[in-house]
Amino acid sequence: MNLSTFIASVKTDLDTFLSQQITTQFPKYLYDPIIYSLDGGGKKIRPSLLLMVAEQLGAQRKEAISAAAGIELFHIFSLVHDDIMDHDDMRRGKPTVHKKWDEATAILAGDGLIALSNIFMMNTKHPRIAEILSAYSETILKVCEGQAFDKEFETRTDVTLDEYINMIGLKTACLLGASAKIGAIIATDDKDVWDHYYQFGFNLGLAFQVQDDILDLFAQLDDLGKDIGSDIFNEKNSILTIYAREQNILPKYNGEDKATFISECKSLFISKGILEKSTALKEEYTQRAINHIDAQNSPLFMELVEKLNSRIA
Amino acid sequence: MNLSTFIASVKTDLDTFLSQQITTQFPKYLYDPIIYSLDGGGKKIRPSLLLMVAEQLGAQRKEAISAAAGIELFHIFSLVHDDIMDHDDMRRGKPTVHKKWDEATAILAGDGLIALSNIFMMNTKHPRIAEILSAYSETILKVCEGQAFDKEFETRTDVTLDEYINMIGLKTACLLGASAKIGAIIATDDKDVWDHYYQFGFNLGLAFQVQDDILDLFAQLDDLGKDIGSDIFNEKNSILTIYAREQNILPKYNGEDKATFISECKSLFISKGILEKSTALKEEYTQRAINHIDAQNSPLFMELVEKLNSRIA
Repeated sequence: MNLSTFIASVKTDLDTFLSQQITTQFPKYLYDPIIYSLDGGGKKIRPSLLLMVAEQLGAQRKEAISAAAGIELFHIFSLVHDDIMDHDDMRRGKPTVHKKWDEATAILAGDGLIALSNIFMMNTKHPRIAEILSAYSETILKVCEGQAFDKEFETRTDVTLDEYINMIGLKTACLLGASAKIGAIIATDDKDVWDHYYQFGFNLGLAFQVQDDILDLFAQLDDLGKDIGSDIFNEKNSILTIYAREQNILPKYNGEDKATFISECKSLFISKGILEKSTALKEEYTQRAINHIDAQNSPLFMELVEKLNSRIA
Repeated sequence: MNLSTFIASVKTDLDTFLSQQITTQFPKYLYDPIIYSLDGGGKKIRPSLLLMVAEQLGAQRKEAISAAAGIELFHIFSLVHDDIMDHDDMRRGKPTVHKKWDEATAILAGDGLIALSNIFMMNTKHPRIAEILSAYSETILKVCEGQAFDKEFETRTDVTLDEYINMIGLKTACLLGASAKIGAIIATDDKDVWDHYYQFGFNLGLAFQVQDDILDLFAQLDDLGKDIGSDIFNEKNSILTIYAREQNILPKYNGEDKATFISECKSLFISKGILEKSTALKEEYTQRAINHIDAQNSPLFMELVEKLNSRIA
């Protein structure tokens, strides 16, 4: 089975599971926006990673599907609340929940998603449920901390590389780490194995975010499905802007032609070695991730790593 | 030990526990509002009930304090998010979190509180942790459902008594039921005992909310610490307004002198038997609660029931 077949089967099984589990329709004020947010598509990377690890280590999918659903619902909770906080109007080509309804509805929908996430995680009904729920609960707090640092950093222009990596570690990479770790906890009681899969997921998450930052400027328009250079135009912290600030060469947009500005930034970031450093950092995290798994005997994992690295235009 | 001494000792122990557990200060964007919301006072009814049950059944406070903190933080999470949704500016004499900071900060503070609540609940480190977390997780979803029904009902004038009781059961009474039940789970493996304490807390919660609705109109100004008659002026559903609507006698405020209007409403509700019916309903729930405990040998519980009933002006 290759990666895209695997992910397709995860999507099917998740949809089936969720339609069996979420049968309540009332109060509509709560469940309509929850169901809307679950219909939003998405790549299902986190539940796929959880199930991939669990199955690689010998567990059955049915033992892990509830935890996989819990992880996915937690991820969607964070998107629904982040979209309110960040005033984002669109998500995966559809109006965000607070745009389609209102902020109060979206706050409560997010709360309901985390409640369901807790329940699905609980319903894993596993002898090591305490370990599963510890990993899960710690992650919720870390993701909140990551989001808080991200908001704090919006008003700062002196964010260091270490601070930035710490932030994306909390906001993005932890949840990938926890997904892989929970898959491992379900399959084995070997704590070293849990830690290796955590580190695999965590470093993959860091690589993923660094790549995302690079693509913000260097992707072809068609690949990204969103505007090129939004980090530069909005003076957002990203791996590119932080490296550029370190060298005091971050260009400031002054209303000139956007395509020309993007083109100049790209040339500058290439000539000053910023693209190279960023790519090297991404590759370092990718390599760290691979070091934690048995690469020879993990074709799906290597394909996941590959998929990530081939995203660049 | 009497009830007020007991609750005072719970407050002290909770404060100590929380100051030991929440030592992180960064990101300030997350922890400043969390700590602010925890400093808000409050009656600590839910953690007190949890500890009262646990200790009544022979458990030590130290076995149950983490779960008690988890319940209190969950309660505060729901206040922080409800205050945003309901546009309430003040809570316990202080600006609400979204007024002191902003909505994004308050959304994230609430999410952080539920994360900490999860962690404290987990950290109970009990052989029956799965049962504790099941009771807790189900409650989170029910409270969200209750809040959603409450929001739905705001735009309806045909809410029935059954619908209203169902809503306050979910929004308010469930959490009191779960607090008592979790205290019991910590102390004993006897599921019948768990259920009796759940029913005690749940019915006490219903009685509490019905009493709150009565006091909204019939309290002395000094007792309530908020404006008299807000349910009537704002045409909110309450046990009084629902009974009045059943008889088609709910007065509509048309800008006359407020004190006169309140006085007329009170007279009407007394003459039409609405106060009597509401009080009878409260007493029915109170009696149902008492039926689930050994009243003779539970002086603290009876004092709690008494405290509730003596709130009326």
